[in-house]
Amino acid sequence: MFMRKNEGLLERLKKYQESDMYPFHMPGHKRQYTEQVVSDFPNPFSVDITEIQGFDNLHHPEGILKESMEWAASVYGADRTYYLVNGSSCGILSAICGTTNNSDTILMSRNSHKSAYNGVILNHLKVKYIYPQILDNFCVQGGLLPDEIEKLLKTHDEICGVFIVSPTYDGIVCDVKTIANIVHKYKIPLIVDEAHGAHFHFGEDFPVSALDLGADVVIQSLHKTLPSLTQTALLHVKEGYVDVGRIEEYLHIFQSSSPSYVFMAAMEHCIRFMEEDQGKGMKLFAKRMKVLRERLGKMNCLKLLGDEVIGQNGVFDLDWSKVVISTENASIDGPQLDEILREKYHLEMEMCSAQGVTGITTFVDTEEGLRRLEQALLEIDSELTNQTRERMEPVLIEPEIRMTMDQAVSGKKKVVLLEDSVGQVSGEFVYVYPPGIPIVAPGEVMQKELVEMIQKYRSMGLSVQGTRDQGVHEIQIIAE
Amino acid sequence: MFMRKNEGLLERLKKYQESDMYPFHMPGHKRQYTEQVVSDFPNPFSVDITEIQGFDNLHHPEGILKESMEWAASVYGADRTYYLVNGSSCGILSAICGTTNNSDTILMSRNSHKSAYNGVILNHLKVKYIYPQILDNFCVQGGLLPDEIEKLLKTHDEICGVFIVSPTYDGIVCDVKTIANIVHKYKIPLIVDEAHGAHFHFGEDFPVSALDLGADVVIQSLHKTLPSLTQTALLHVKEGYVDVGRIEEYLHIFQSSSPSYVFMAAMEHCIRFMEEDQGKGMKLFAKRMKVLRERLGKMNCLKLLGDEVIGQNGVFDLDWSKVVISTENASIDGPQLDEILREKYHLEMEMCSAQGVTGITTFVDTEEGLRRLEQALLEIDSELTNQTRERMEPVLIEPEIRMTMDQAVSGKKKVVLLEDSVGQVSGEFVYVYPPGIPIVAPGEVMQKELVEMIQKYRSMGLSVQGTRDQGVHEIQIIAE
Repeated sequence: MFMRKNEGLLERLKKYQESDMYPFHMPGHKRQYTEQVVSDFPNPFSVDITEIQGFDNLHHPEGILKESMEWAASVYGADRTYYLVNGSSCGILSAICGTTNNSDTILMSRNSHKSAYNGVILNHLKVKYIYPQILDNFCVQGGLLPDEIEKLLKTHDEICGVFIVSPTYDGIVCDVKTIANIVHKYKIPLIVDEAHGAHFHFGEDFPVSALDLGADVVIQSLHKTLPSLTQTALLHVKEGYVDVGRIEEYLHIFQSSSPSYVFMAAMEHCIRFMEEDQGKGMKLFAKRMKVLRERLGKMNCLKLLGDEVIGQNGVFDLDWSKVVISTENASIDGPQLDEILREKYHLEMEMCSAQGVTGITTFVDTEEGLRRLEQALLEIDSELTNQTRERMEPVLIEPEIRMTMDQAVSGKKKVVLLEDSVGQVSGEFVYVYPPGIPIVAPGEVMQKELVEMIQKYRSMGLSVQGTRDQGVHEIQIIAE
Repeated sequence: MFMRKNEGLLERLKKYQESDMYPFHMPGHKRQYTEQVVSDFPNPFSVDITEIQGFDNLHHPEGILKESMEWAASVYGADRTYYLVNGSSCGILSAICGTTNNSDTILMSRNSHKSAYNGVILNHLKVKYIYPQILDNFCVQGGLLPDEIEKLLKTHDEICGVFIVSPTYDGIVCDVKTIANIVHKYKIPLIVDEAHGAHFHFGEDFPVSALDLGADVVIQSLHKTLPSLTQTALLHVKEGYVDVGRIEEYLHIFQSSSPSYVFMAAMEHCIRFMEEDQGKGMKLFAKRMKVLRERLGKMNCLKLLGDEVIGQNGVFDLDWSKVVISTENASIDGPQLDEILREKYHLEMEMCSAQGVTGITTFVDTEEGLRRLEQALLEIDSELTNQTRERMEPVLIEPEIRMTMDQAVSGKKKVVLLEDSVGQVSGEFVYVYPPGIPIVAPGEVMQKELVEMIQKYRSMGLSVQGTRDQGVHEIQIIAE
């Protein structure tokens, strides 16, 4: 018998829940299961069934699931809404594969989620990239400029769809309305990864959802900013520029043929709660965040990402619920701030970069939780001194694409030292956090400047990640 | 506000659980949440977290998830075991895509799960089919003959992998050992869809798992026959004939980047329970099933699928836990039996076909539950008369493949009446239940005999399913 020496995952999770660690990370329900929204959720095994009579079939809905998704669509103002049990990832894969044909060209923001790149690989697509703006005053990615999208569409009539991310991980929102108008002039669809914006629809103090601004397909993670279970998401469709049937076919492919009723019940329950609450919880939340943001705005060394985000060539809207703190001018860096928050204050953030931390707040957050965050940050700030450090700019080297991503991924590869890869074609992704944009994708040439940048980033202690070798000391290149 | 008029999914599920309906269907935990194995599972929201410090990352495991999956591998005797949060479906997709290259040829059993066909489409594969045997005495699919596999491998040296299903939905097991030996002579991998056999490893009275018989990749649904949550599954790998790294890359693609910790905890908890129980629960279960099967074997009109299943050219082993009842010689048909069991006895079966019903039992089933099934079937049987009806043979028309599945799926299509499709190339799948084998796949010619068979099946009241038109009165064909 192979006994586990250590305690199990379930025991650890229970113990963690009993601790006083407060979550400023997803899932959006914040484990506040005493709250009315999730408190009456039973032992999951007691409601975990399969497609028996009376309970319909997610892959061929004709009964209560069809009715439930139609109702959800009416809540959101979509023509079709689909419950996703495999996260936004499967929605993004389905949206990309379901709106393009093999070998088509897609226009995609370079800061897209990995699942968008996976969609490109699976459908053998070619890609034109749009890059997020660099911000004047803050080291996070900005939004996309509608003008740049128009310029690319004008010069590349082979583009047959546009995929963008809005809001970003840090809450920065694009001008989706203008972008949608531009994209539709070319009679092609706009897909928006709104994974971080599932709450927009329910709060008038938050940005407007892409679905209300003309996007054709919108994917939202229910679990990120609303009280639903991790791995639950929605895909909304507005008809006109997309073939709904084709997207559906891919949803059947990328989701289990045994979808979880626990997930489906949690999704419906979550949307129902939001709808019946009529924005009251979101209103209170916005009020609390206004106070918090005002107070955090007065910090001396730490810096809160403000309400208006200024890029080189544009101003972007911001989702108030994201608490993005920069350490650029402080005597500690992001990982140190993250550690102090965790160890001394028992506050767990969503993300930490070399230059700061990002926290996710939702309407489920308690008054006490938000106060703890405020007091911790103010106290830490009061103990810091100002210090200006070299600014680490996001990467913006235009890729030299030698072959499509799928050709590179399926091509014969060999592993070489990073410094020996100059001039070769990469067989893998290389990411640098922040900003989490792939600085190299499969099929792109390892330009000298790129290799030097990866080395520099690594020496600065940034997290450089490849597909196989985490630190990218070695890299897979395409064998001749 | 869009109020829901009807009660929500969660309320319906709770109410269903409070009813006296007894489940002879998956999930394997049978909602017996008072049982020790799942009774201490908390409100799922309380343990639903994300990849925070100390809790590792399923897509880059280095800590407790890595340790947990290594332990699971040691329990099962695999070189690698992966927790799957998107069901066996994502495991089958990853196994097929991760062991083949674009345009390769795969040998596949025609009774494969839809996800296997999806893998073929995604990787643009060509397919050679092996057909399950027809049974002498029972109208369900039999197993596969090793000799037929060898013959195909001998004559088609382009085949670079073999995918089979064992056990079938009805519990029929192939001679995986002989098949693995044959396949390995050709230096190619054998993938076994063992979705219905996750319990095999833990019970000596049950068939031996494919993993112990030489298969290279084995996919098991934890939720089907063991007490885990729906949508949880395992993928096991034995190294030698497959590139583990490539399979992993596809697991990252086909699973959410926000995998559920509730699922992962449930999987570990389930395996741990089985391991620590040392087969005691399975032993008791086998004893109970022996009694049940002996008694059901004495029915006069209804017929229980026996322990030894005889095909035209081979004898197959059977998983005792499946209760497959034929109505072929009875005065009622499958749907009628299914309805009587549900309405009069409050027993819900897993599946119902024109010729019978199939129930899933697991070691979690209560003595009382099994007694209810026995008494119900004996009572129903005593009230029936013998009646011999026309036997409906499974379909065995060799397909005429005109193009690959992915070419057909992405090709331009038009919709015609079924009777007008003769000689055309199908653009979709057509299934007939039973036996649930696709009788037409995309890219195959609609032969006259096929069209007639579909019409005959429909007139017999069998469930014929297409991709768009459920009754296949119309069918999508490839436009010239």
